[in-house]
Amino acid sequence: MSIITIVGAGMMGSAMSVPARDNGHTVRLVGTHLDREIIAHARKTGEHLTMQRRLPEGIAFYQIEALRQALNGCDLVLCGVSSFGVDWFLDTVVPLIPDRVPVLAVTKGLLEEQDGTLLPFPSYYQHQTGGRLPFGAIGGPCTSYELADRRQTCVAFCGEDMRVLQRLKALLETEYYHISLSTDVLGVECAVAMKNAYALGVTLAVGLIEKEDGIGCTPAYNPQAALFGQSVKEMAAVLEHVGAGAGSIVYGAGDLYVTIFGGRTRKLGTLLGRGIPFPEAIQELSGITLESVVIANRLISAVTKAIQAGTLSDTQFPLLLHVGKLLRGDTNEGIPFARFTDAEM
Amino acid sequence: MSIITIVGAGMMGSAMSVPARDNGHTVRLVGTHLDREIIAHARKTGEHLTMQRRLPEGIAFYQIEALRQALNGCDLVLCGVSSFGVDWFLDTVVPLIPDRVPVLAVTKGLLEEQDGTLLPFPSYYQHQTGGRLPFGAIGGPCTSYELADRRQTCVAFCGEDMRVLQRLKALLETEYYHISLSTDVLGVECAVAMKNAYALGVTLAVGLIEKEDGIGCTPAYNPQAALFGQSVKEMAAVLEHVGAGAGSIVYGAGDLYVTIFGGRTRKLGTLLGRGIPFPEAIQELSGITLESVVIANRLISAVTKAIQAGTLSDTQFPLLLHVGKLLRGDTNEGIPFARFTDAEM
Repeated sequence: MSIITIVGAGMMGSAMSVPARDNGHTVRLVGTHLDREIIAHARKTGEHLTMQRRLPEGIAFYQIEALRQALNGCDLVLCGVSSFGVDWFLDTVVPLIPDRVPVLAVTKGLLEEQDGTLLPFPSYYQHQTGGRLPFGAIGGPCTSYELADRRQTCVAFCGEDMRVLQRLKALLETEYYHISLSTDVLGVECAVAMKNAYALGVTLAVGLIEKEDGIGCTPAYNPQAALFGQSVKEMAAVLEHVGAGAGSIVYGAGDLYVTIFGGRTRKLGTLLGRGIPFPEAIQELSGITLESVVIANRLISAVTKAIQAGTLSDTQFPLLLHVGKLLRGDTNEGIPFARFTDAEM
Repeated sequence: MSIITIVGAGMMGSAMSVPARDNGHTVRLVGTHLDREIIAHARKTGEHLTMQRRLPEGIAFYQIEALRQALNGCDLVLCGVSSFGVDWFLDTVVPLIPDRVPVLAVTKGLLEEQDGTLLPFPSYYQHQTGGRLPFGAIGGPCTSYELADRRQTCVAFCGEDMRVLQRLKALLETEYYHISLSTDVLGVECAVAMKNAYALGVTLAVGLIEKEDGIGCTPAYNPQAALFGQSVKEMAAVLEHVGAGAGSIVYGAGDLYVTIFGGRTRKLGTLLGRGIPFPEAIQELSGITLESVVIANRLISAVTKAIQAGTLSDTQFPLLLHVGKLLRGDTNEGIPFARFTDAEM
């Protein structure tokens, strides 16, 4: 059995304690300075404050001040911070991780370089640390609640070194948590990041129907399916553009599917689809961290730069560019369904 | 304006009268011998008996005896029969269609040749008639109810001749019915047919959760998304195997999405997912034409033959082969989630 230290006690990081404990590992869950209450509450009650689930028995809980102690002798670090915490993790946590201990991130997202190049977090970490630690990330459709409930879940671990990935799979695979492995880091992470933008795109149709028939009406699926198909088409074009393997579209499609049915991104897409301008929609969702918006904007920015550079065409991305307009507060135009059609010879 | 004759007054054929009439065409709707009541009811009330929607004004309704008259001088024939009516259509209707009048079929499915080759209906028609008429078919996510309600819908017309397809698009495109064109007939029709098998596969997860938590419980999406991603992976492998263009996966993914949320296939998949054996599930769905089962079985048979011939591997199709077992009445095994994982270098 191994020692697994999870840094970041948000919902996804904390949910990873479930397969880790079920496999008999020692689990240390460290809250960041944002997770103080979560750790205090978990110590007292054994429950996760925001996920509202009982955590497995036997977890050791740490506040951020005890980080060094929590990392001492560990075999694996799970990075549970959101994309907003990436630099904090790099500055504060990484220097304390012993050499060659692998770091596996649940963080979903990408960085955008000045020239529009998209950079997955594992590659960013790897670059910033000069290869001292092997970094990997988790992609694929997985909501924290359902992982904590031990629902059947299929994910992908990606990283540069297949042998490291195989070790991680051996540590964390259970009869409900199934792990594919891929060295196509850019492909998996790009697919995962894109689902944020496209889940907004598909759920516009939920709001569109509500605008026509009233909130609480029977949903219509032709428009959602049209947007879903268009999303798959545009995601495949982005993957091809960045040089990712074609196989990653599987993670993108699955992840898009699960994101459409859950939480904050669906809610925002629905509000925008009803015709509510972005600033008002954001107010209605106040207090919620809109990571998906930040990631969507990065993707839109990168694609826009590639269009300006002539390496992509705007006719390939009518949905993404429409989402971009809505996120800039524009509500004048309807969903450009007519521009989704094409004629292939 | 043109004369469009729809043969087959089932729901999808009849729904096509909506864009046709909205574009000002003369529409003649001909019932088969199975549609006698539908035609009589529509004449009397203007409503479609099974779709329970008001049909557009100005349609001329014909019983099958007046078929010749309904085809007289028409510019386009829409074939609205199900896959069970394909040979009837070929024997009874096709000989009466004037030379060079295009035929566009809403029929979804494929034929399987003895050696496991999959044959789309337009190619079958084309072959059987020696090229006397141009045949095309409609793919992509479109439920008849929602088309009749003029919901935003994106479909694909496929056929061998792009100029014919362009004419058909000009006849039928509206501000809610958007038409892509493709000469990849095998790709579009294969994608469309596969969604029947894989919609059964994805909705197994609905039944699985109901078995665990009780009917009416909150759905869980990690398992559905895992099955959705696996479906996309397996569909892409079939498309590659038959030599279809990679672009068709877009229609497959969109069509799979819409089928998961609607009607008979979802119901059967849910019952099978609860562990109810196929013969009992079929009894519970009595009176329903299970076209999707017939098409799923054809696909499974074709893939099985390719596996036996060594041109495909069983490790590529754990979900399809599992659905095949369930359709043969086997209920011993759970969904093989663990076999969905892979390790790509």
